Amino acid sequence: MWGTTASANPRLSDEERIDWLRLIRSENVGPRTFGTLLRYYGSARSALKALPGLASRGGAKHAARITPREEAERELAAMRSFGVRLVALGEPEYPRSLARIDDAPPLIAVHGNAALLDRPMVAIVGSRNASAAGAKMAGRLARDLGQAGFAIVSGLARGIDAAAHRASLPSGTIAVLAGGLDCIYPPEHADLLESILVDGVALSEMPLGWEPRARDFPRRNRLISGLALGLVVVEAARRSGSLITVRFALEQGREVFAVPGSPLDPRAEGTNGLLKQGATLVTEASDVIAVLEPILGCKIEPPAEEPLPAPEPEILPDTEARTRILALLGPTPVALDDLVRLAETPPAIVRTVLLELELAGRVERHRDGSVSTA
Amino acid sequence: MWGTTASANPRLSDEERIDWLRLIRSENVGPRTFGTLLRYYGSARSALKALPGLASRGGAKHAARITPREEAERELAAMRSFGVRLVALGEPEYPRSLARIDDAPPLIAVHGNAALLDRPMVAIVGSRNASAAGAKMAGRLARDLGQAGFAIVSGLARGIDAAAHRASLPSGTIAVLAGGLDCIYPPEHADLLESILVDGVALSEMPLGWEPRARDFPRRNRLISGLALGLVVVEAARRSGSLITVRFALEQGREVFAVPGSPLDPRAEGTNGLLKQGATLVTEASDVIAVLEPILGCKIEPPAEEPLPAPEPEILPDTEARTRILALLGPTPVALDDLVRLAETPPAIVRTVLLELELAGRVERHRDGSVSTA
Repeated sequence: MWGTTASANPRLSDEERIDWLRLIRSENVGPRTFGTLLRYYGSARSALKALPGLASRGGAKHAARITPREEAERELAAMRSFGVRLVALGEPEYPRSLARIDDAPPLIAVHGNAALLDRPMVAIVGSRNASAAGAKMAGRLARDLGQAGFAIVSGLARGIDAAAHRASLPSGTIAVLAGGLDCIYPPEHADLLESILVDGVALSEMPLGWEPRARDFPRRNRLISGLALGLVVVEAARRSGSLITVRFALEQGREVFAVPGSPLDPRAEGTNGLLKQGATLVTEASDVIAVLEPILGCKIEPPAEEPLPAPEPEILPDTEARTRILALLGPTPVALDDLVRLAETPPAIVRTVLLELELAGRVERHRDGSVSTA
Repeated sequence: MWGTTASANPRLSDEERIDWLRLIRSENVGPRTFGTLLRYYGSARSALKALPGLASRGGAKHAARITPREEAERELAAMRSFGVRLVALGEPEYPRSLARIDDAPPLIAVHGNAALLDRPMVAIVGSRNASAAGAKMAGRLARDLGQAGFAIVSGLARGIDAAAHRASLPSGTIAVLAGGLDCIYPPEHADLLESILVDGVALSEMPLGWEPRARDFPRRNRLISGLALGLVVVEAARRSGSLITVRFALEQGREVFAVPGSPLDPRAEGTNGLLKQGATLVTEASDVIAVLEPILGCKIEPPAEEPLPAPEPEILPDTEARTRILALLGPTPVALDDLVRLAETPPAIVRTVLLELELAGRVERHRDGSVSTA
């Protein structure tokens, strides 16, 4: 969360919302870059103005595409007519826990009962090809955690996800979609989503009409773990999407829980593996509540981030610095600190060069903050 | 292990073995009392001589039965003709790990390949009404741990025990019986025991002909855990004999392992519960080996216990001390230290009074060393 902007201006004006939407939908601007730009330039509008210059200094082969104002206006209008609200990071409706992850989406599209996002949440995920016992277990946990006051977050997938949503329909369930809110995957869960929207809520960081691609699912998974205080994995094979969600949860400092299963059942390999690595063993909802209750007690506020000074003309990186830094980059990710040390260049210059290169699509920033060539 | 006796005389003479057998088979003499008596009197023969006096001073209503010499001779002869060796604590054939538990049986009857008792051991136990998956898991672990060089210890019961024995027949398997070595329980496992005795071994602390009573099974369980470096529980209901073995294992400082199962399977309630309490999760033999290998590296010798001075006439407890101590005892177990403090009586006197009362069948000594009225 980008402190000052949010606290000075708890709700965006329509103008600002359009600017935010333009910026996040522009080429090479992900949630992290969005945050950096906002802190550098103080507002999305100033960042949009600076974007072409930054990208061209970064050596963009072609001018990076900046979303035109009209396109953003159309998206916002389409969302409103679909009954979807676009909530900005820092606004009161933005889920508090999600705001704390360092690649929080600047804008989320919210459909349904947004008030649910104010509740403490537990994510329940697992195999798409769940066993009957696994689905029953997911349902039981979702029901009991729901009755204990937790909203249940999941990904609308087949198997465990669907069982968790269904069992928490009466108490409160939250579906996080990998595509646009009108692009339901799997398609046969259109009815389930409709039931969810009666009292529950669906959300997505993608525009309406966005058909989810394979890589959108892991990206979405960071929101599932990020929304929740804890993540419960019910049945997961050795390499499964659920384990990607676990990795996000651990990076985000969320509690990880796993339901045990027979070592002879391949659907328990992932969960038993998590237990060996220290996940909390869950056989009933009280196992989850016992861990989360003390956390609920203490309100954790996101740290307010100071705005960065905008790059001033006199401290603009020279070509030499840019060349030096680029030479140090390769396909293997390198930490920012190492880069500063190896380039013998002030951190502010290194950060600016990286921002330029990022916007030019020439470097990639990784989840741990390290960078590599794209 | 009662240090000096054992090290001064690594193997008992036939005379001594008869004396040991008479003493341990005498009324009110359990393994702990046997140890105390041996340390007090230096030999089983001296203890046998002192026994009537001690018991009568303890207030025995009738003279406690002391096993006649002829009876012990007959038992020893019967064992020999059955092909069974009676191994005494402190003798080289006595299993090193078992010697370290504080209620180690003074004598064990060993049938079959005694050399196996020199190998590092893992105990595998679990439900009698095991599922097919549970039995398969027990077999797989027993086979793989066997191949890794561990002898497998179990209790010859139906279900998990039988599966563990069968799978470790080629590598080395050890059955610990609750009754005499000729009293097989359950009777239908006579064939299994026969197969075990081809290369493996069976042992018991009970005399030949002893039909096991319900209370002999928990007593036997302490030997299963005591023989092994670690105890693996494969399937166990909430209240089951396996969990009693776990309690012994923890008291004896043994590693405890549990195989996870579905929370919807009542046969996994016990094992999942153990995992919640910190048992090591096992899905394959390497999980056990990883924990036990470092322990194998360091030889742990039992501490040599100093012999206690025999009660001398001048420090014999007077009636007053005996009355004072008896008044402090009730059905609720009390620790020895508390008793010494409350009775305001020297520890040597308290210990002697307790020994007398024990031999008179008036007090009971518990596993943690505390005492109560019988």
